[in-house]
Amino acid sequence: MDDDLFAKGLAQRKATLGAEYVEKNLAAADDFTRPFQEAMTAWCWGFGWDDDAIDAKTRSMMNLSMIGALGKMHEWELHCRGAINNGVSKEEIRAIIHVVGIYCGVPQALECFRAAKKVFDELED
Amino acid sequence: MDDDLFAKGLAQRKATLGAEYVEKNLAAADDFTRPFQEAMTAWCWGFGWDDDAIDAKTRSMMNLSMIGALGKMHEWELHCRGAINNGVSKEEIRAIIHVVGIYCGVPQALECFRAAKKVFDELED
Amino acid sequence: MDDDLFAKGLAQRKATLGAEYVEKNLAAADDFTRPFQEAMTAWCWGFGWDDDAIDAKTRSMMNLSMIGALGKMHEWELHCRGAINNGVSKEEIRAIIHVVGIYCGVPQALECFRAAKKVFDELED
Amino acid sequence: MDDDLFAKGLAQRKATLGAEYVEKNLAAADDFTRPFQEAMTAWCWGFGWDDDAIDAKTRSMMNLSMIGALGKMHEWELHCRGAINNGVSKEEIRAIIHVVGIYCGVPQALECFRAAKKVFDELED
Amino acid sequence: MDDDLFAKGLAQRKATLGAEYVEKNLAAADDFTRPFQEAMTAWCWGFGWDDDAIDAKTRSMMNLSMIGALGKMHEWELHCRGAINNGVSKEEIRAIIHVVGIYCGVPQALECFRAAKKVFDELED
Amino acid sequence: MDDDLFAKGLAQRKATLGAEYVEKNLAAADDFTRPFQEAMTAWCWGFGWDDDAIDAKTRSMMNLSMIGALGKMHEWELHCRGAINNGVSKEEIRAIIHVVGIYCGVPQALECFRAAKKVFDELED
Repeated sequence: MDDDLFAKGLAQRKATLGAEYVEKNLAAADDFTRPFQEAMTAWCWGFGWDDDAIDAKTRSMMNLSMIGALGKMHEWELHCRGAINNGVSKEEIRAIIHVVGIYCGVPQALECFRAAKKVFDELED
Repeated sequence: MDDDLFAKGLAQRKATLGAEYVEKNLAAADDFTRPFQEAMTAWCWGFGWDDDAIDAKTRSMMNLSMIGALGKMHEWELHCRGAINNGVSKEEIRAIIHVVGIYCGVPQALECFRAAKKVFDELED
Repeated sequence: MDDDLFAKGLAQRKATLGAEYVEKNLAAADDFTRPFQEAMTAWCWGFGWDDDAIDAKTRSMMNLSMIGALGKMHEWELHCRGAINNGVSKEEIRAIIHVVGIYCGVPQALECFRAAKKVFDELED
Repeated sequence: MDDDLFAKGLAQRKATLGAEYVEKNLAAADDFTRPFQEAMTAWCWGFGWDDDAIDAKTRSMMNLSMIGALGKMHEWELHCRGAINNGVSKEEIRAIIHVVGIYCGVPQALECFRAAKKVFDELED
Repeated sequence: MDDDLFAKGLAQRKATLGAEYVEKNLAAADDFTRPFQEAMTAWCWGFGWDDDAIDAKTRSMMNLSMIGALGKMHEWELHCRGAINNGVSKEEIRAIIHVVGIYCGVPQALECFRAAKKVFDELED
Repeated sequence: MDDDLFAKGLAQRKATLGAEYVEKNLAAADDFTRPFQEAMTAWCWGFGWDDDAIDAKTRSMMNLSMIGALGKMHEWELHCRGAINNGVSKEEIRAIIHVVGIYCGVPQALECFRAAKKVFDELED
């Protein structure tokens, strides 16, 4: 494990998903899940995100369209919260889901609307 | 067909993919392909893209990550050229492909690198 | 929005999914979901379905095989009810799922059997 | 191998894809490919297709939408020829591709248009 | 239905998934689900698995990576229990999920970790 | 970049894909492709493969089924050569493709047979 890359990744991951959430996740890791949690922090967040080429808000918008295309809705919901943290507006999220509908098909857009509605309902509570 | 939506879509489509390319496509359409060409121009480019919520460069970055996730490489190559037209830099395209590798898997990132290399080689000629 | 296409789409959508269900959906739409609900009604149901080339029952059979291939089970269940409304028999649905098993793999056929069983159990209640 | 199921499957397969094509395929099979060719003939064509529940033309329409959703274009092209053999018209194939565009996304519809155009160009020669 | 292939398949299926589970499934089958249950037993387990080329433990490891790639998590969980029955260790399952993360993307690995954790928690109870 | 993880990954990658092929790839890398080539060597081959839990031959068998499920055929062909290097026999590759047919659908198995045939034809030349 590259300690430096892990440290940079951890900072990025906390900035997007929230320090509390990330620390809870790492604390809950055991021998079965820890190696991947650590590698993912270094690889995804350290290597992939810690690159000045793209700002955090644009990355969040890319992630919502990309993870929407993959249809991985557990992760999409998580990144929907992260996108709001990174300054993506409700109107922008709507525009992203429209694009998902066009390129990935209508059923996938409907999945994203359901997940987004759940996130906004929780935030508005 | 909504003439207004089609007109707005056509302007957006030309701005991203180039007027010459789009006009050649529409001119080549026959009874078999014309209804979809027209509906797609209105729906994708008129409804989906003609929305001030997201600027053209950010949309291109979203498209490259989303179409990368779908693995539709013919379309990806087309949108790679469109992204360069919309001001996306080589460093940004590289950063997008890195993210595709992390979220969609290494084989898909390698597909994107091959397609991007082809586009850059053509442009550098 | 093309009013004419929307009107034709709305009629088709109600004929397949039931007027009550569709009206409830449109009434529940807010600023976040309404543009897509309207565009989808015009695009999917007005442009895509309002075409004399294929009758409603055959379209339903195509949809169950296609949405089965996509693995979008929320939508599949909805279209399973729509297919029954359009006259697709239990034996035909079984034959469709067999084909899904062969072309899309056994796990996807098992997903379809679970969803179909849920729909038939509700109808038989 | 169930000889009876294989015989029924072989008849169905020849009726759709053409006797000459199927015989050439089976003749070309060697130890590596023969077990699957035989099992597929019995399973896909004998079990899956030899079922009076759905007629051959409707099956072809289902296959084009389902294999379109899967994005397996080599197989789609083959089944496009089979669909024409089974009486599916050019207008029906166009309507099927429109539905693929709506449910599976625009890039997949464009793939289908390219493959269909190739098939029609060959037939018109 | 090939009785011989069905008998071999049934023995293989029971050996991996447990006789009790398989018998409960077959007993629960009705006219709607029985033809596929029988064909699947003959085709998957009789033709696909009853082949001395690959031992049961290696097959289970292949299945977890392949079904992980497909993202069919209901089936993955079932085969995770089957893999443990076939002698795949917790360390091996972890290593398989790591590979899924690399080739199929991080969100899919996280889905597998959640399903595996559920299986191990049940077994440890 | 973790130099240690990269070194371990490079050794594994060369052992499976051949030293010459890997060195040619790294030598051909430029500013655009080098960061990913290096990260992939460390992450895939160093973290993912350099784990005593699973031997190289079993990993190759898992990879062929998993990459088959993903339908990434450029990568599949590469790993088919790697599998042969790691001692996977022609009979085992056939058995793997049979399993792909059952779980991922017949069209995907046919793609794998075409790619495998190409690899074996080249080797037999």
